[in-house]
Amino acid sequence: MKEQLSEQLIEVGDVFEHSFSFDQEQINLFAEVSGDNNPIHLDSNYAAQTVFKKPIIHGFLGGSVFSKVLGTLFPGEGTIYLKQDMRFTRPMYVGSTYQAVLEVVEVNREKSTALLKTRILDVETGKSTIEGEALVMNKKRL
Amino acid sequence: MKEQLSEQLIEVGDVFEHSFSFDQEQINLFAEVSGDNNPIHLDSNYAAQTVFKKPIIHGFLGGSVFSKVLGTLFPGEGTIYLKQDMRFTRPMYVGSTYQAVLEVVEVNREKSTALLKTRILDVETGKSTIEGEALVMNKKRL
Repeated sequence: MKEQLSEQLIEVGDVFEHSFSFDQEQINLFAEVSGDNNPIHLDSNYAAQTVFKKPIIHGFLGGSVFSKVLGTLFPGEGTIYLKQDMRFTRPMYVGSTYQAVLEVVEVNREKSTALLKTRILDVETGKSTIEGEALVMNKKRL
Repeated sequence: MKEQLSEQLIEVGDVFEHSFSFDQEQINLFAEVSGDNNPIHLDSNYAAQTVFKKPIIHGFLGGSVFSKVLGTLFPGEGTIYLKQDMRFTRPMYVGSTYQAVLEVVEVNREKSTALLKTRILDVETGKSTIEGEALVMNKKRL
């Protein structure tokens, strides 16, 4: 299922994929909103002297794609976010293309909840940058 | 330890507290940056018809205070974020005052990592809105 909005019930095994990237302006805005102005995200001279070599995306900004997908696309409207675990496995860079992959691993129809495996992959290398799980409630689609 | 910057080594049992709140403008900016424009965060008429009654803060925006604290205050500069788990236990509202409480539960000096218990408390009720754990690396302070 790719970028497809639906009102169907969500089932175990359903997978939703969503491609995205962030530019430096978005990083700067996130730094302003969150108060996380760590120079590793904002200052290319500072970043050049670190193991990352260039500015990296805040983990919380990268991971916010899960919030976007779960809250607006899959399951979408009406979703209540109950849990999100994230392991930041590799750095994410400004301008690179990433793919969020959300796979439904458990559904509880009585509680209208789903547990999803949530990953972000670097499209170029196929390697993960964030791995974890989400638990959501949605009374229409679960 | 309150809002105090330090270059001391961080030890098991250290606790760092940081108060914060978000206004509707910050919520709107986060919605724009993240792409999460779920109306529960943005539309007071929509929110009035839900169990929450008024717009709630995105879980990822609330949780971003952990990124701010860990990346800029405690341990601060040089921190590499390895893991963050969050359970969204209660809704967070625009304009309310919250306190992030980060408590060091394990330190590994060899790896320069720390595991922290991370919570957000509603200052008025004392109840948690987010609970979880973070794992960070910092070569100067761990």
